[in-house]
Amino acid sequence: MMFSYATHLSCPKCGAIYGIDRVNQLCRCGSPLLARYDLEALRKTWKRDDMRGRPNHLWRYHELLPVRQPAHVVSLGEGMTPLLPLPQLGKDMAISRLLMKDEGVIPTGTFKARGAAVGVSKAKELGVKELAMPTNGNAGAAWSLYAARAGIQCHVVMPVDAPMITRNECAISGAHLSLVDGLISDAGHIVAQGIKELHWYDASTLKEPYRIEGKKTMGLEIAEQLEWNLPDVIIYPTGGGVGLIGIYKALSELRDLGWVRDQLPRLVSVQAEGCAPIAKAWEEKKQTSDFWNDASTVAFGINVPKALGDFLVLDAIYRTAGCALAVDDHSILQEQKRIAQMEGAFVCPEGAAAFVAARRLRQNGWIKEGETVVVLNTGAGIKYPDTVRTNPPLLQPGEPLPVFQSGDPQPLKPS
Amino acid sequence: MMFSYATHLSCPKCGAIYGIDRVNQLCRCGSPLLARYDLEALRKTWKRDDMRGRPNHLWRYHELLPVRQPAHVVSLGEGMTPLLPLPQLGKDMAISRLLMKDEGVIPTGTFKARGAAVGVSKAKELGVKELAMPTNGNAGAAWSLYAARAGIQCHVVMPVDAPMITRNECAISGAHLSLVDGLISDAGHIVAQGIKELHWYDASTLKEPYRIEGKKTMGLEIAEQLEWNLPDVIIYPTGGGVGLIGIYKALSELRDLGWVRDQLPRLVSVQAEGCAPIAKAWEEKKQTSDFWNDASTVAFGINVPKALGDFLVLDAIYRTAGCALAVDDHSILQEQKRIAQMEGAFVCPEGAAAFVAARRLRQNGWIKEGETVVVLNTGAGIKYPDTVRTNPPLLQPGEPLPVFQSGDPQPLKPS
Repeated sequence: MMFSYATHLSCPKCGAIYGIDRVNQLCRCGSPLLARYDLEALRKTWKRDDMRGRPNHLWRYHELLPVRQPAHVVSLGEGMTPLLPLPQLGKDMAISRLLMKDEGVIPTGTFKARGAAVGVSKAKELGVKELAMPTNGNAGAAWSLYAARAGIQCHVVMPVDAPMITRNECAISGAHLSLVDGLISDAGHIVAQGIKELHWYDASTLKEPYRIEGKKTMGLEIAEQLEWNLPDVIIYPTGGGVGLIGIYKALSELRDLGWVRDQLPRLVSVQAEGCAPIAKAWEEKKQTSDFWNDASTVAFGINVPKALGDFLVLDAIYRTAGCALAVDDHSILQEQKRIAQMEGAFVCPEGAAAFVAARRLRQNGWIKEGETVVVLNTGAGIKYPDTVRTNPPLLQPGEPLPVFQSGDPQPLKPS
Repeated sequence: MMFSYATHLSCPKCGAIYGIDRVNQLCRCGSPLLARYDLEALRKTWKRDDMRGRPNHLWRYHELLPVRQPAHVVSLGEGMTPLLPLPQLGKDMAISRLLMKDEGVIPTGTFKARGAAVGVSKAKELGVKELAMPTNGNAGAAWSLYAARAGIQCHVVMPVDAPMITRNECAISGAHLSLVDGLISDAGHIVAQGIKELHWYDASTLKEPYRIEGKKTMGLEIAEQLEWNLPDVIIYPTGGGVGLIGIYKALSELRDLGWVRDQLPRLVSVQAEGCAPIAKAWEEKKQTSDFWNDASTVAFGINVPKALGDFLVLDAIYRTAGCALAVDDHSILQEQKRIAQMEGAFVCPEGAAAFVAARRLRQNGWIKEGETVVVLNTGAGIKYPDTVRTNPPLLQPGEPLPVFQSGDPQPLKPS
């Protein structure tokens, strides 16, 4: 058995082929590249039972990852996050089996760790010494920390409105951080210019082909955690969309290996009403999205006005009979609170958006009675303190506790 | 096989026995109570190999946990956190095998989730409807969220200086939160008064006997992750000290089961110079600690002027030929940065304190050449944004990237 069965990169648009053992970024045609594996060989030698007893991180799937040498793996122990039943919330939504894939329980507190772990590992294997990327915060934080572990210098540009804590993560790792008074698309232009001049490795979303392989492991884990019985629906909050592309790729590869049944789950892409290019494209039955002007949402991670991989996201939705929809910020914050109070899970606003979508899709009958629904919570709520307002009473030592009315977080009067 | 082999509670001070199937708090004599198990029966029927393939959360050790019915388990998927090799930092400290047990990778982002998971589960089993506790922030956040999942009303009092994000966690869960203009000891007095009047369940540290059982699982996991070969030294940042008591209890139980060798690791208790009651007691060879006046440290979680379980912490140190020491805040913040830059791990200041201790103990020869050292990082750095200062340059869209000098996070001049 080899450590990795990766064979090459291929272009999903024009079909061009590239080697996987040297630096490649976008295809000549401008499309992202996808890693390919010798699934035929794997099908013969690799069985589902081989997974039993493997370490509980994403490198348990190393055969389906692009890193050739175990020595190049840069890991902080990421992966095998909980797939958590949410029975109270499920009941509240009339979804009989509601599960949350909780990507808050991972190094750096968001699913971006997966992309960074595999992306940085492969960059290290390819001999990269310096990389650059734009970010809405969490990806930059994750890449900064993994790059530090790999000994790779990292340059990050993020919007000034990105979550504050992600600045600290970049800074403490020793990355070079700049802010931009604009959106991630503005950050992207600045990075592109810097790369052109300084010849760094471009770690922008989908401009390197390997973070998608990291994100793919969410799909592999969901399948394994359900003992290879796929759910009916998977709901994913969509900014750049790499997670959804990755999950689709994972399940397709598992199907080709014969590890799961042929019919894949319906994939749902959730966006915010203030930034919904993919939802709009889906409604209009288009293959690509248009740039969304004046993008704005409390769910900052999905504030992406135009995704490079939009055509891959839309393709995955169409092929699985999925759908795309946009939800409003007010509902997101309400749902975030409801999840915490009913299930004890403090999810990020992007995750909350996906739960709002689950509720809507059950209400309008798109999710049917008895279906199993997996919702991706892409990060920990603790990374977004501004989404919660608190005003607790301040006591002096020796003062008695105030009297609270049940269900009301504010005190009525001192006891 | 039974789900739990718990038999009773016993007092480590006076030897009194209490039932484990009804609410018990402190012993009549004022000491915390400890849960006991039928280790003799377990020794006959439960083997190390039985652990293979069990789910990757702390309930894999249910035989050694106090919850009788699986239906009472309140879980967010906590446990089996990474035991991460830190080769660069180890080299820098001249420790040949340095491992970090990373408790940032757990629901709520700190090891308090373990105590809350088991404590709340057992409270649910005992029929508790309402509980109260003082906290330095993270425990209150964890108990609030687990209590919400269990449907138990939660009252929390925390110092006004506790990490801001922990307020949000309490608030979003629906807990009743008050702040006190003082220390955790002041919060404790307020809670005690409220409990006396309102007859809530007292979930204060060690006033209920089960959070220690949750914390114990850190020790079980370290042993299992090292394939039942114990390390030479385990270093633990100590506030209330429950984790250290728990690790000692875990390893003692594993020894009684015959799963590990007789000689336990030397346990090290680390405190901050601004609040070091246990380090002082250890230096003076005392069995208990004195209240520490004017306690203050950047490592807020260990800002505990007097721990109820101090005698248990000191006992565990003496019995394992361990030690206790205090480190300064400046070194803590320096080490926190070094760990991020060398290993890509953004640890909490309490965790960083434990790494400072590792460095000191190797320098003075207490840790010897070739020893295996496990350091507990008790939480994610992202919960403590104030420990990192950043001042990144702000660009306008279209502006070029500033030029950074290698290793300097501040730009020299615009390019």
